[in-house]
Amino acid sequence: MKIIKEPITQNKKNKGAEILCIGSELLLGNIINSNAKWLAEELAFLGIHHFRQTVIGDNSLRLKEAIVEASYRCQILITTGGLGPTPDDITTQTIASAFNTPLEERKDLLIELKNKLKDKDYILSDSQKKQCLVPSGSEILKNKTGTASGIIWSPIPGFFVMTFPGVPSELKEMWREEAVPWLVKNSFSNEHIASKVLLFSGIGESSLADKIPHLLKKENPTVATYASLGQVKLRITAKGINLEEANKKIAPIEKELIKLTGSKCYGENNQTLEKLVIKMLINNKETLAVAESCTGGGLGFSLTKIPGSSKVFLGGIIAYKNSIKQELLGVAEEIITKYGAVSSQVVEAMSEGVQKKFQVNWSISISGIAGPSGGSEEKPIGLVYFCIKGPNKMVTWEEKFGSYKTRKDIQKLSVLKALDRLRLCMLNES
Amino acid sequence: MKIIKEPITQNKKNKGAEILCIGSELLLGNIINSNAKWLAEELAFLGIHHFRQTVIGDNSLRLKEAIVEASYRCQILITTGGLGPTPDDITTQTIASAFNTPLEERKDLLIELKNKLKDKDYILSDSQKKQCLVPSGSEILKNKTGTASGIIWSPIPGFFVMTFPGVPSELKEMWREEAVPWLVKNSFSNEHIASKVLLFSGIGESSLADKIPHLLKKENPTVATYASLGQVKLRITAKGINLEEANKKIAPIEKELIKLTGSKCYGENNQTLEKLVIKMLINNKETLAVAESCTGGGLGFSLTKIPGSSKVFLGGIIAYKNSIKQELLGVAEEIITKYGAVSSQVVEAMSEGVQKKFQVNWSISISGIAGPSGGSEEKPIGLVYFCIKGPNKMVTWEEKFGSYKTRKDIQKLSVLKALDRLRLCMLNES
Repeated sequence: MKIIKEPITQNKKNKGAEILCIGSELLLGNIINSNAKWLAEELAFLGIHHFRQTVIGDNSLRLKEAIVEASYRCQILITTGGLGPTPDDITTQTIASAFNTPLEERKDLLIELKNKLKDKDYILSDSQKKQCLVPSGSEILKNKTGTASGIIWSPIPGFFVMTFPGVPSELKEMWREEAVPWLVKNSFSNEHIASKVLLFSGIGESSLADKIPHLLKKENPTVATYASLGQVKLRITAKGINLEEANKKIAPIEKELIKLTGSKCYGENNQTLEKLVIKMLINNKETLAVAESCTGGGLGFSLTKIPGSSKVFLGGIIAYKNSIKQELLGVAEEIITKYGAVSSQVVEAMSEGVQKKFQVNWSISISGIAGPSGGSEEKPIGLVYFCIKGPNKMVTWEEKFGSYKTRKDIQKLSVLKALDRLRLCMLNES
Repeated sequence: MKIIKEPITQNKKNKGAEILCIGSELLLGNIINSNAKWLAEELAFLGIHHFRQTVIGDNSLRLKEAIVEASYRCQILITTGGLGPTPDDITTQTIASAFNTPLEERKDLLIELKNKLKDKDYILSDSQKKQCLVPSGSEILKNKTGTASGIIWSPIPGFFVMTFPGVPSELKEMWREEAVPWLVKNSFSNEHIASKVLLFSGIGESSLADKIPHLLKKENPTVATYASLGQVKLRITAKGINLEEANKKIAPIEKELIKLTGSKCYGENNQTLEKLVIKMLINNKETLAVAESCTGGGLGFSLTKIPGSSKVFLGGIIAYKNSIKQELLGVAEEIITKYGAVSSQVVEAMSEGVQKKFQVNWSISISGIAGPSGGSEEKPIGLVYFCIKGPNKMVTWEEKFGSYKTRKDIQKLSVLKALDRLRLCMLNES
């Protein structure tokens, strides 16, 4: 493939890439834009800056507007979708018309298309032939697995457009086989970005931010936090002339963060609390069972999502009704009557009961008020009691997740808290 | 909430909405933009045109540019993300600065925030206080489940901006509780599009489509199918001069669809199998317990997500290990040895065991191979046995979900199949 003759100036390079996804099905919410996420990750990996994503429907006027705008802002515009044979596939012709360039029929594409249709004498329909039309002067991005080829084209100096089909598998193949080698050859990818995500639990986003104001102000690496239910993620992103240099910049920041936050940081990147807990149990050759009331099986379910969990997780009892707590977990009726089913006394008896029944090293019990009804002034919605019983310890505690939280969130937070506390117990930090 | 005094002209109305999602994590490809998809579907449902989606990182210059541009093009700009307490949360201040408007601290928001933090005397940090600053003249979009409120603000005539946090659960609840009523009151949603979703299980998307080719060709109403894991949705969308007229067009199509598909159609709109099953049990004054092996609590968890499930769902036993199946469910060791834990004989004994232990009308048991290891030629990954035992019947069956399926999907499909079959058993159709 052709290498660009003129060097790309540093100034131009900073303008980076944009992604433009085309398809009314995206605007109608019928499908999720997984292509944009995938391409964004690829660009980050290549160290190509990426400042904007746009979605436009199958409308040539609005599409043209978006393409022209992008040509002022960025250096590479990557499009997905609209390369098929039907009338609503308008990407190639709209790009050509945006820069007043005629389309030309490419013989090589016609031959390739016939080959793909496995019959050299096949008479292509007009809609099939449409897929062989590209703007004059463009290079072809070959599509090995589908019929829609893409293009790489520079309609104006310093601006390139690359088109891909919307079918994810075809896009991915074409990106890896055709686009990445072109980007590397043409020196688009010569600043490497490395990134690491640290995962926290037991600390809120603002408390974490208040611990590290000096880090949040940094420029290279940058440090950013974002919160999801019950957990906080922190991303360190560094730029360097190569990946090694970029990673070197991350290391000291990571070290400082872990020093400042201690065991609140439970892992990095794709780690989860359930994966970690299962791994710790396997390493320790220890077993676990659960006794769940308000989470109704959610804790067991999160543990059994992990392949290999059957080595250490024996099962549990969903004791949703009080009589089941008595009959199957041996919780004394008097305790329930005296303290209520949502109490430290009951979760302690539940943990003991399940530990005995399942003959395990560790047991976790949960009983709380998930709402939306059943709360009182003394025991509001969101109040949840927990007990973890281990080989040499028993930890009982309560959480007040807040009565404004939804049932679903209270159940999910309960599962996360239980897993996090088990982790800390196994680390001897609780 | 305030109703806009001046009528919105038809011309303005056609300019529709745009979605602007803010967050560098989207541009880095760390997370998928599920918020844009969800909002897009909601807008389509409300009949609000939606012509463009944009993603911008946490950069105030580029964000400002995107906001100003959108104000020329659309009537409502819906933003997600960037409302948190940290320095990279810049949405509110950037919107204000894009229209040269000062921020003001809202006392009502300060009080609400303190209430949420469970302590009226709590001293808010500067980063927490930041969440109480909004552009002068804006209305508040209340966030019941989180700390980041949104705004509805019209900085220039005929243009509104609505902000939401990036946390999906908070966004969804604010949208439903606050934004939709506002949009309806202010006649943004008066194109009079009516839409109804019918839900199917036990039939694939292509089998459903093959039954209704004549309906899929219709123009008003339109009929479209969407497949998700284990279920198919069908949307009927009609336009009319008023909602009544639009709904009238839906009714005969709905009737025909239900006639053609029988009990495969289990409900409409926001119905779920678990909601339906709980409701049927409550109506019948019957009780249920579960015995779960490969789903590890997932069936119990899906049932206890439903408020009021405690009336009929007593609990269950997560019998992940074989010894637990024997000890707690009374499955004879010989049966496990002879037929294997994944067999019709074992699920039948599990159902009997749990029905006796919990003294319930209905019991469901599940045992299967969820993978990614543990499969054999005879019993491949994806093979799952089920048994439902009811007052007068016992139904045992197997499903082969396919060994190419992920562990997560096999678990989820198992839960759905169990719920669907219980529904059919209670309808006396299985």
